[in-house]
Amino acid sequence: MNRKDNRAADGMRPVSLEYDAQPHADGSVLIRMGGTHVLCGVTVEEKVPGFLEGTGQGWITAEYGMLPCATHSRGRREAATGRSGRTYEIQRLIGRSLRMMVDLAELGSHTLRVDCDVINADGGTRCASITGAALALRRALERMVEREMIPELPAVLPVAAISVGVVDGEVLLDLDYSEDSRAEVDANFVMAGDGRWIEVQSTAEGTPFAPELFGQMAMLAAKGIEELFRLWKD
Amino acid sequence: MNRKDNRAADGMRPVSLEYDAQPHADGSVLIRMGGTHVLCGVTVEEKVPGFLEGTGQGWITAEYGMLPCATHSRGRREAATGRSGRTYEIQRLIGRSLRMMVDLAELGSHTLRVDCDVINADGGTRCASITGAALALRRALERMVEREMIPELPAVLPVAAISVGVVDGEVLLDLDYSEDSRAEVDANFVMAGDGRWIEVQSTAEGTPFAPELFGQMAMLAAKGIEELFRLWKD
Amino acid sequence: MNRKDNRAADGMRPVSLEYDAQPHADGSVLIRMGGTHVLCGVTVEEKVPGFLEGTGQGWITAEYGMLPCATHSRGRREAATGRSGRTYEIQRLIGRSLRMMVDLAELGSHTLRVDCDVINADGGTRCASITGAALALRRALERMVEREMIPELPAVLPVAAISVGVVDGEVLLDLDYSEDSRAEVDANFVMAGDGRWIEVQSTAEGTPFAPELFGQMAMLAAKGIEELFRLWKD
Amino acid sequence: MNRKDNRAADGMRPVSLEYDAQPHADGSVLIRMGGTHVLCGVTVEEKVPGFLEGTGQGWITAEYGMLPCATHSRGRREAATGRSGRTYEIQRLIGRSLRMMVDLAELGSHTLRVDCDVINADGGTRCASITGAALALRRALERMVEREMIPELPAVLPVAAISVGVVDGEVLLDLDYSEDSRAEVDANFVMAGDGRWIEVQSTAEGTPFAPELFGQMAMLAAKGIEELFRLWKD
Amino acid sequence: MNRKDNRAADGMRPVSLEYDAQPHADGSVLIRMGGTHVLCGVTVEEKVPGFLEGTGQGWITAEYGMLPCATHSRGRREAATGRSGRTYEIQRLIGRSLRMMVDLAELGSHTLRVDCDVINADGGTRCASITGAALALRRALERMVEREMIPELPAVLPVAAISVGVVDGEVLLDLDYSEDSRAEVDANFVMAGDGRWIEVQSTAEGTPFAPELFGQMAMLAAKGIEELFRLWKD
Amino acid sequence: MNRKDNRAADGMRPVSLEYDAQPHADGSVLIRMGGTHVLCGVTVEEKVPGFLEGTGQGWITAEYGMLPCATHSRGRREAATGRSGRTYEIQRLIGRSLRMMVDLAELGSHTLRVDCDVINADGGTRCASITGAALALRRALERMVEREMIPELPAVLPVAAISVGVVDGEVLLDLDYSEDSRAEVDANFVMAGDGRWIEVQSTAEGTPFAPELFGQMAMLAAKGIEELFRLWKD
Repeated sequence: MNRKDNRAADGMRPVSLEYDAQPHADGSVLIRMGGTHVLCGVTVEEKVPGFLEGTGQGWITAEYGMLPCATHSRGRREAATGRSGRTYEIQRLIGRSLRMMVDLAELGSHTLRVDCDVINADGGTRCASITGAALALRRALERMVEREMIPELPAVLPVAAISVGVVDGEVLLDLDYSEDSRAEVDANFVMAGDGRWIEVQSTAEGTPFAPELFGQMAMLAAKGIEELFRLWKD
Repeated sequence: MNRKDNRAADGMRPVSLEYDAQPHADGSVLIRMGGTHVLCGVTVEEKVPGFLEGTGQGWITAEYGMLPCATHSRGRREAATGRSGRTYEIQRLIGRSLRMMVDLAELGSHTLRVDCDVINADGGTRCASITGAALALRRALERMVEREMIPELPAVLPVAAISVGVVDGEVLLDLDYSEDSRAEVDANFVMAGDGRWIEVQSTAEGTPFAPELFGQMAMLAAKGIEELFRLWKD
Repeated sequence: MNRKDNRAADGMRPVSLEYDAQPHADGSVLIRMGGTHVLCGVTVEEKVPGFLEGTGQGWITAEYGMLPCATHSRGRREAATGRSGRTYEIQRLIGRSLRMMVDLAELGSHTLRVDCDVINADGGTRCASITGAALALRRALERMVEREMIPELPAVLPVAAISVGVVDGEVLLDLDYSEDSRAEVDANFVMAGDGRWIEVQSTAEGTPFAPELFGQMAMLAAKGIEELFRLWKD
Repeated sequence: MNRKDNRAADGMRPVSLEYDAQPHADGSVLIRMGGTHVLCGVTVEEKVPGFLEGTGQGWITAEYGMLPCATHSRGRREAATGRSGRTYEIQRLIGRSLRMMVDLAELGSHTLRVDCDVINADGGTRCASITGAALALRRALERMVEREMIPELPAVLPVAAISVGVVDGEVLLDLDYSEDSRAEVDANFVMAGDGRWIEVQSTAEGTPFAPELFGQMAMLAAKGIEELFRLWKD
Repeated sequence: MNRKDNRAADGMRPVSLEYDAQPHADGSVLIRMGGTHVLCGVTVEEKVPGFLEGTGQGWITAEYGMLPCATHSRGRREAATGRSGRTYEIQRLIGRSLRMMVDLAELGSHTLRVDCDVINADGGTRCASITGAALALRRALERMVEREMIPELPAVLPVAAISVGVVDGEVLLDLDYSEDSRAEVDANFVMAGDGRWIEVQSTAEGTPFAPELFGQMAMLAAKGIEELFRLWKD
Repeated sequence: MNRKDNRAADGMRPVSLEYDAQPHADGSVLIRMGGTHVLCGVTVEEKVPGFLEGTGQGWITAEYGMLPCATHSRGRREAATGRSGRTYEIQRLIGRSLRMMVDLAELGSHTLRVDCDVINADGGTRCASITGAALALRRALERMVEREMIPELPAVLPVAAISVGVVDGEVLLDLDYSEDSRAEVDANFVMAGDGRWIEVQSTAEGTPFAPELFGQMAMLAAKGIEELFRLWKD
């Protein structure tokens, strides 16, 4: 099949980062994966949720939102309607993924609050959010050291995420919206820099799929993730 | 490791069904998997959501709830607090899974509304919900034929779900709460009766995991699912 | 008139109890009065509402809910819609009634939180909730003694409730839904084991009623309550 | 015991009416019973709730509110907090009571929407609301005839309500707040002009009470109600 | 043009005050400006908002509401719908205006909570609210001195507000609803007793207006405000 | 006083526009005024609010939001907390201002829905929102002509807004956050391209101000607005 811009089945969309796009945040990145643009901002708070008080352990949590004009049909503003189930599902995934990045005991009694706001959506917003937020989080940790909130930079596990799907029977990497909306199978892989898995989710969109297909998707995802981790080396 | 009741690593908890536990529903099952008890009721409505009006296609949707006393520490009643993110995440999974069971075009302009309410929780409530709800849904489809709401029973794909996890380095089938709460990796597999996959989700709970481990979990899940499909033959 | 199952006008529906139906609760009873089934669970919390802090006095409060499939036409889930006025009215009645059971000063700084969840509804759910919850509460008080949360069992006033109504001019005891929905007068009596009254409510459903009719209803209620208090002696 | 202003045990507080206190309403009354002042306004809407559409029958419904400064300790504004359970309970009582006043089939497809807003509270606000609203409703019905919304005035059943209670063992009529807050038993009687009962509610506030006491309260209530019906004759 | 009751273009509607209309409040005024009637009640609380804790400074805040029957078409009750944007806008204006009246440092750690509830609306409710609330606030300050909550009465800046508008090209003072609803320009002036400005807002309702017109409105407003400050001298 | 970047008292911050920053919108502009960055997107809907149905007239409405990381101290996400009063106040101002731009009768039965989302906040966000949204609205109107939703471009009144304030006794144009937060008087002017006024708001922040000061602010605002209208000519 022909992908937009002549992308190969295992080709990624161009990825770019703009650091400090939100200068009031303690760390921020505007990540662009093709037409998907996500602002990821991290705020360090000098307190922890109730269940961690007195433990000396820190916390990482995430919230996700989408501007009404980010999508082709304007979405309703969640300030008026409350969060949708989709929003809850995605922000829980982002939070779980980012909590793998550091030993929470090394954060002291701080909460790193991550905001992922989608400016423009063209498929893969949850993966772009995780990939961008992980880099913003590293930046925020560096700031914490500078401000002597923590004595030294903890070991940071690089984390990134990519979508894979099956469209017209073909396994494709990094789906855009036009592909995603007609995919037979849709999967998201969150991985660590060393190739281990943090979270995988795969969903049949029309008919169930064979386990073998999942294996193919996993391999393609590994290739894509490898490219994303180059962002960590710059 | 020693599991409660001397279960083997690949052993399931005892499963039982009580049909028509809610006689006002159009199909209902009380499913018990060990200490996890879920009431699954299905209501047939003679209308469809707005986005399907006029298409002649039907819809299947699910809501999930947990009674406050279902868990060791009483949960807050969502009628007062609103639904939690966890509730949204689970009911979306249940809905997606059940929509694979039939060709929605064969439902006519009907919505099958599925309620899964956890009476007692001891791990694996989302899997028990899917497994029980699929059987209640089949029952409701039979009622629709009896009442001549649809001309004949559509082809029904059996669906069931099982949890797998890694505890102390060992892959275990069908985790109870005490196992689930200290698992290193946690996975849920929703499968069709022919072994194909509908949805898989796997989450690292402390450290990332190797892809190979996922393969072992998938095999164990397949064994468990096979046992669950015996419930379809009675 | 002919009642279902040939019940006499002053006949009760069969009542049964299943203790510890929710093993995670500190006391629980599944009460069945004919087709009305209510799960009553009690949780003991080691704190009291703000207005009682520092007084040494305890508190008893109740919440009421109904599963969507409990009724013939599926009810909307209150986690999505918020509580209805009817729900508030009923749970306030349950709470007031149960607070008569013990001298709150003997509970120490504990709150006994009562959850009444209707699994199946066939009339009289508020009365069944009170009757079942009172027994679950006694069980929870016994547990508090076992756990040395209170030094000894306080004096417990048995409490139970029954509905009475006038249908086609005839006074009937313990109305089921088909009777309740066409009753001319509807009354609920909450009584103590010694025959005294705790709360009575009587409502005209179509035309006002003569005070004499209230007297007849009260006598029938007393007979029904007496039968319910046998549940306390087993 | 000594009541304020030397009231006898069976004495009422002075009652006064100010018609058309809210000129934009279709009928309105400011009722004052001692220090309890309630604005009762009725609005006629040319539509009915969904469950009555197409039946040609009308509807009467009520909402109740209390201004924050109506009570000694300022209450929280329900526009910010949502309605309390108490508010729901009271407005449901008002609505049920007023629906007894006319044959709803004679209202045509109109809804009479009643607003009872407590300006100052000194006990008995729900009874004053019902008594005042019934008179405002009669006024609104007259307006409907004038405007030819209904062909002629339907038969109107006069309705009024009064509180009775037991304080220090003595049965008192029309409790003010200082009496109500220390009553052993608290009762509200809603009656028709001919002495029949519409709704009675009686609640033990500390210990259960003997049925005989209820009889005494009913007699005192009848005396009070009789006085209130004089308001209908002016 | 002809104004109702032959008012001149620079004529005010009759204004009257009824002090202590809500005796449970710490200061209250029922202000009537023609057909606009607003109850203004002030409650003194012995605490301050979080951001002022420990500063020794007090706070003044306001809430605004409108009874459903205050307007020609019944408004929806905000206890059911939540506050409207208009309500928020108005109560923020009232709060800002009243905070100019005293040096907050002289209030000690007290919050003066102002409730403005519109009983009947005929234009200019926000201005009547400010004018009445300022007088109720002065009364509450006097009570604070009597109760020794503050050592002496702080210097109080008189505050009042008036609306001005342009109707059919003519600048009018103190618009009623029939004028306000067809005004080309609408303005509200909040002024201090010495003629200085506290808040001015002017809005074009159909076409933009010339700055000169604003000057004319300001002069007319100054005249109206002067009359309102006579209320402070009685 | 010294302003940042050596700005003169009547100097504006640099303004830049990025059109089509949200390609899914029907018109969008990212406006930057110094450190204040606002995304303004316009969506055309083929329907109108209920009160305009059947009139053939269109509507313009606005919503305003601020990303949590836009400010120095992270703001709470309004999807979780609901909109604040400040948000309501601002979005009502934006909507009123933009409705002056065209004769609504020329829009046909369309709603132009404007979203203003603040990415970074450094003072003057409501003014930047209006200025940017007006340009995005013009763009959306052009698109409507291209798509033949309206026969030709209606006459468009250019609209822009600027803040003025008094800091340390000096009147300053276009305040940034550090200036705004210590201003004695704060004003916002919304003007048309021909110098007429659409909405003016001026608020004393500590002490009342003399009317003469308002005149000075108005003159400075006129100068600033003139510069902003250059944006309309490019």
